[in-house]
Amino acid sequence: MPQYIDTQDADFETKLSALLSAKREDSPDVDDIVAGIIADVRARGDAAVLDLTAKFDRMDITADQLRFSSAEIDALIAQVSSEDRAALELAAERIRAYHVRQMPHDEQWTDPEGATLGWRWTPVSAAGLYVPGGLATYPSSVLMNAIPAKVAGVPRLAITVPTPDGAANPLVMLAARISGVDEIYRIGGAQAIAALAYGTQSIAPVDKITGPGNAFVAAAKRRVFGKVGIDMIAGPSEILVIADGDNDPDWIAIDLLSQAEHDESTQSILLTDDPAFARAVAASVDKFLQTLERRDIARKAWEDNGVIITVRDLDEAAVVSDRFAPEHLELCVADPDALSAKITHAGAIFLGAWTPEAIGDYIGGPNHVLPTARSARFSSGLSVLDFLKRTTLAKMTPQALAAIGPAAETLARAESLEAHGLSVRARLDRLNGDPDE
Amino acid sequence: MPQYIDTQDADFETKLSALLSAKREDSPDVDDIVAGIIADVRARGDAAVLDLTAKFDRMDITADQLRFSSAEIDALIAQVSSEDRAALELAAERIRAYHVRQMPHDEQWTDPEGATLGWRWTPVSAAGLYVPGGLATYPSSVLMNAIPAKVAGVPRLAITVPTPDGAANPLVMLAARISGVDEIYRIGGAQAIAALAYGTQSIAPVDKITGPGNAFVAAAKRRVFGKVGIDMIAGPSEILVIADGDNDPDWIAIDLLSQAEHDESTQSILLTDDPAFARAVAASVDKFLQTLERRDIARKAWEDNGVIITVRDLDEAAVVSDRFAPEHLELCVADPDALSAKITHAGAIFLGAWTPEAIGDYIGGPNHVLPTARSARFSSGLSVLDFLKRTTLAKMTPQALAAIGPAAETLARAESLEAHGLSVRARLDRLNGDPDE
Repeated sequence: MPQYIDTQDADFETKLSALLSAKREDSPDVDDIVAGIIADVRARGDAAVLDLTAKFDRMDITADQLRFSSAEIDALIAQVSSEDRAALELAAERIRAYHVRQMPHDEQWTDPEGATLGWRWTPVSAAGLYVPGGLATYPSSVLMNAIPAKVAGVPRLAITVPTPDGAANPLVMLAARISGVDEIYRIGGAQAIAALAYGTQSIAPVDKITGPGNAFVAAAKRRVFGKVGIDMIAGPSEILVIADGDNDPDWIAIDLLSQAEHDESTQSILLTDDPAFARAVAASVDKFLQTLERRDIARKAWEDNGVIITVRDLDEAAVVSDRFAPEHLELCVADPDALSAKITHAGAIFLGAWTPEAIGDYIGGPNHVLPTARSARFSSGLSVLDFLKRTTLAKMTPQALAAIGPAAETLARAESLEAHGLSVRARLDRLNGDPDE
Repeated sequence: MPQYIDTQDADFETKLSALLSAKREDSPDVDDIVAGIIADVRARGDAAVLDLTAKFDRMDITADQLRFSSAEIDALIAQVSSEDRAALELAAERIRAYHVRQMPHDEQWTDPEGATLGWRWTPVSAAGLYVPGGLATYPSSVLMNAIPAKVAGVPRLAITVPTPDGAANPLVMLAARISGVDEIYRIGGAQAIAALAYGTQSIAPVDKITGPGNAFVAAAKRRVFGKVGIDMIAGPSEILVIADGDNDPDWIAIDLLSQAEHDESTQSILLTDDPAFARAVAASVDKFLQTLERRDIARKAWEDNGVIITVRDLDEAAVVSDRFAPEHLELCVADPDALSAKITHAGAIFLGAWTPEAIGDYIGGPNHVLPTARSARFSSGLSVLDFLKRTTLAKMTPQALAAIGPAAETLARAESLEAHGLSVRARLDRLNGDPDE
């Protein structure tokens, strides 16, 4: 049974705090194993990657088979139905259109002192995208990671995707092709992350690694961080729906379940100001749980982590929602824009009952890689910015240096950094025609 | 003696690779100690912080003395000379003017299908800034961290600064006051990071922690990452100067030394196309090393880590510089803008001989918190973006859902996520007047 809470409960704050600090995921401690794998790949390169791929994916291949050939990719893509292809292409087009608007601008200006200042953005030279294999192979994730990289202008984008027992997903190949991915390697696990970060004889290293993965992949990403950039380490996913009583309970129930069906550690939360509606949604959830294909997973997630909170009014709902800082937030209320304005922390907001969260997973345009586990308090979803870096620019004229240089000398002296001050003074002396110069 | 390399050397690539992979800093493994400190602060709150402050900073204080009072801050600030105050205020003004321009814009638009899409930026609710105490207390770092936070609109900004034996730096207090810092706590080390991340009875938790610190602070930041956001973990600093033969060797020598004087693990690199100029700079460095206040530190840094590379021409200098992806890059050449256009990786570029790097440390306007150890390949200096997070927005109309919803259903089916598809289908059925609805 999901947890029922009312903000009027005497122990509401206690219950909410317990919910917020609950850990929904057991991360197995695989760090030692991962450290060994990374060291092995660094030491032996391709040979280590091949050994580990034989061991974990039961794939007996040679170094020149690590990368999918164009012909292999073509053959796989040919298996995709025209309906699936059209859907993937529409999704790609919409995701691209959204992310193009995110591109930041370079700036340069000259201030009154004559100093020219600014910055410029450049893409990383090479990025690697980890794509999980096996059951949870999501072509939509390929689009969501690869398209922002290519919009950012990353010249070289490599994918690693394990193919246990040789099974490759045609839709993943098509998503990679549509996104403009340059290289696809049939490897996975910590060995794939190590190969991307450090390179091997067959795989050139990258500067940034993104994409979801299991505990081994997450631990490997943490370990190579610093050597390369990484995106966030995602935790279990969550949805919070704020709904008033004027909703179809079935719509809200299936929205909650669309999160719950992902895996057993996901969390679905309903906030409503209508207790009768809350009961109707719960009943509808139970109804769907009779027939849903992934009902075992969804039921476990709902019973272990589901929460229904009755609030006094929508203002209170906004306050409670901010405590969760949800990854996905649906606002199924009469005036979703007004309620949205009261929300401070959320990864993505879906406004109005006609915007189910699943639209955001696939086709809306915004990215579906979003901050989980309350990290929307301080971080954002994946964007083109993850594949860009900013270089600041400063150019003084002699006059500008004369205007602001003495203050720099003063501060250098205050911080006891003499050479800092002298580097300014040497120039100012020239300007003043100092006879020592 | 610094290392001398010529790109024409037969073993140039070997030497360069060795340089790039060299670790200039021994990070002592303090992780176990830090884990214990964090657990203690989480368990005992103020009491743990007070015990640790007594132990490490020899400060016997009570919980209500953890925070500097306004009167204490006023008294310290009163000790600052008017010259120092004016310099700090000019620096603050220029840093603020630069960072205001970094503020990203919210966007919202409606696409041809009728979907309203966009995003909005909001500041983190509370940020904490670590300021080192003791010898390396830099008021300029307070400005560089605090001003972007306040420009971003962070409503609550707390500083922790240890005051070993009670010694507080008046300039740090003034920098905090000028920047608009809201709370200042006289604590440091891993216990300060733990208090900021988890809160104590006297210190409310924050959502983001930035600022430099020693090995204990760095390890603590790594550990609390996830619970809160953190900025980068900075490594030893470096400067790379590309200079042609038409420069005053003294200017370039003192610029190299302004990096070397920071600490013994810093690196100063000169790239020049003029071997005679290279020798002149080296001689000038030796001359300055006779008299510089911090000559022992600077000499050790220069002898251990200094590098002089002779290149064939400036184009080759740009290529070699990109391999280093330097934190600070000075372009002391006739046409610095043209050379800058050839650079891909650098934290900050200083254009022309009239722009010594020290200007960027204090007063230029751009941030001096920059990516070190080649991480400019994938990351950027501190900016207002570090204190903001982006929430994506999506709002469908019934017509928009009808236009793009079926593709989402197709993709959900392809990924075997039935409830995802049903959440779209339930709405489309209503639209189609499905009799089951």
